Amino acid sequence: MKAFEDIQNIITTELETINWNKDPRGLYEPIGYVLSMGGKRIRPALTLLACNLFSDNVQPAVNSALGIEIFHNFTLLHDDIMDRADVRRGRPTVHKKWDDNTAILSGDVMQIASYQFIAQTPSEYLKQVLDLFSKTAAEICEGQQYDVDFENRDDVKAEEYLEMIRLKTAVLLGCALKTGAWIGGAGEEDAQLLYDFGINIGLAFQLKDDLLDVYGDEATFGKKIGGDILCNKKTYLLIHALELAKGEDGAELENWLNAFDDNLSNQKILAVTSLFNRLGVKSICEDKMQFFYTKAIANLEKVSVLENKKQELRKLAEKLMFRND
Amino acid sequence: MKAFEDIQNIITTELETINWNKDPRGLYEPIGYVLSMGGKRIRPALTLLACNLFSDNVQPAVNSALGIEIFHNFTLLHDDIMDRADVRRGRPTVHKKWDDNTAILSGDVMQIASYQFIAQTPSEYLKQVLDLFSKTAAEICEGQQYDVDFENRDDVKAEEYLEMIRLKTAVLLGCALKTGAWIGGAGEEDAQLLYDFGINIGLAFQLKDDLLDVYGDEATFGKKIGGDILCNKKTYLLIHALELAKGEDGAELENWLNAFDDNLSNQKILAVTSLFNRLGVKSICEDKMQFFYTKAIANLEKVSVLENKKQELRKLAEKLMFRND
Repeated sequence: MKAFEDIQNIITTELETINWNKDPRGLYEPIGYVLSMGGKRIRPALTLLACNLFSDNVQPAVNSALGIEIFHNFTLLHDDIMDRADVRRGRPTVHKKWDDNTAILSGDVMQIASYQFIAQTPSEYLKQVLDLFSKTAAEICEGQQYDVDFENRDDVKAEEYLEMIRLKTAVLLGCALKTGAWIGGAGEEDAQLLYDFGINIGLAFQLKDDLLDVYGDEATFGKKIGGDILCNKKTYLLIHALELAKGEDGAELENWLNAFDDNLSNQKILAVTSLFNRLGVKSICEDKMQFFYTKAIANLEKVSVLENKKQELRKLAEKLMFRND
Repeated sequence: MKAFEDIQNIITTELETINWNKDPRGLYEPIGYVLSMGGKRIRPALTLLACNLFSDNVQPAVNSALGIEIFHNFTLLHDDIMDRADVRRGRPTVHKKWDDNTAILSGDVMQIASYQFIAQTPSEYLKQVLDLFSKTAAEICEGQQYDVDFENRDDVKAEEYLEMIRLKTAVLLGCALKTGAWIGGAGEEDAQLLYDFGINIGLAFQLKDDLLDVYGDEATFGKKIGGDILCNKKTYLLIHALELAKGEDGAELENWLNAFDDNLSNQKILAVTSLFNRLGVKSICEDKMQFFYTKAIANLEKVSVLENKKQELRKLAEKLMFRND
């Protein structure tokens, strides 16, 4: 069994061997820039770890894993344009460092590049991996669309939110795992259990993200705490707060949602956070996160390989849940 | 042999059966809108005509043909954002009818949809079709990038321009033809001859476009004559004019290139057109167009099927060259 760190090293090394230093520079340079920003490489790691459950040789899954990672970074690139996000991982985003048109076109070719890596999946698995990858890619776009739609709605239900984050975040984890499992030679039942493991981990992961954005430690989290509160993002916390806040609490929450004065930023963050605490939505969110985490672990337990082979995936799931960044 | 019109009917019918009327509406509705705008469906027609050279049954090539047409329309969608084009085929473009973010995200999922159709290529040809498609898709982005780069350069050479339009326009025609040929069962030599036929027709087609933009008839051309002149687009005509205009002609051309006053639009178009005529760049462009057209016909002649089977492709090539719109 390979350790998570060894798997990460394989991915980092392989990613670095891709040459983006080619003409036209204006098209390919931003891709190298985005991929050099780092990130935890969780998705390709999941592919290789899932493959490793069934096969000692993870090499046949490397190109598919890279395709998934490149696709993930492509979605960040285009999402950053749509969200007008200026900074990612402490560095200017592509549309900020270059411009919108560059970010659009480099993103487009990055999506194509992700398919070029997926196309290098061993031929016996190509069709099924390709179909799952495309289905997943479309779902991610659907999730992003729902996310945008929710901005203009005041009646988003918790269930709708969970479906949105399933599409936007969880399905790519499921796809990464199932792809690796297939290439490792897993049977359909195990491959599906790993897909479900990915979905549940992904849902828990996003709820953790919502929590960190409010309750995280700014130094380790890497972005400003309270960002979601400031832009009224309909997270699992806010959706429940909107549902639960009655009387004075309801009026106060409503008030803060209409406050966009930069000078009141810190006050808004403090006030909404204390409303969240008072309404108990922090623990609602934590409970739901725990619920999905437990389901994920149950999925993993059912996978028909020796328990000790699963420890790296279990450790990774734990790390994602109990992280501070 | 199927006639071009029959082939077009197959494509139109198949395109209409695709359901874009699904959730989230904001994501899929613009795709239905773009594909309902019409267009000549030349690329998928080329795929089916090429297939038909080698096989009476074109059905196995239909999904690949649709993938190519959807990809083509995706590039128009994203190009229109980058070019800030408000109108296409007489109707508002997606970023105008909706907004930029919608156009970006619908385009992204449209690119994925094109891969979903390509993935339905008969399995024995899937890998080679997929690889050619991705290579071509990346080349089209490269062509678009060079096109953008050229806007900020005053020293673009005719050869660079031809390479740009090869990437931006011609390779997709070549890809469409080669894909159809493969699926029809063509040998590698014939498939490559059809690819080259597509490249040469594509180059001639784009030069024809440059000519129509200046010398076309507004009523049949469908867009305003002189658009390229007004935005100083570095077409094959302007690149040669810049090279040939000396003394007074050079000063006059330079002057007009610096004139952006809307009130002088008609004057600018007339003056630059008459400079083009005086400098003989119209016939330089026509000669080059003829050169590629002749090469294309020579490629087609070498394809090892009976001459009478080729008449639809020859007729289509003629139509593209001697069109007025």
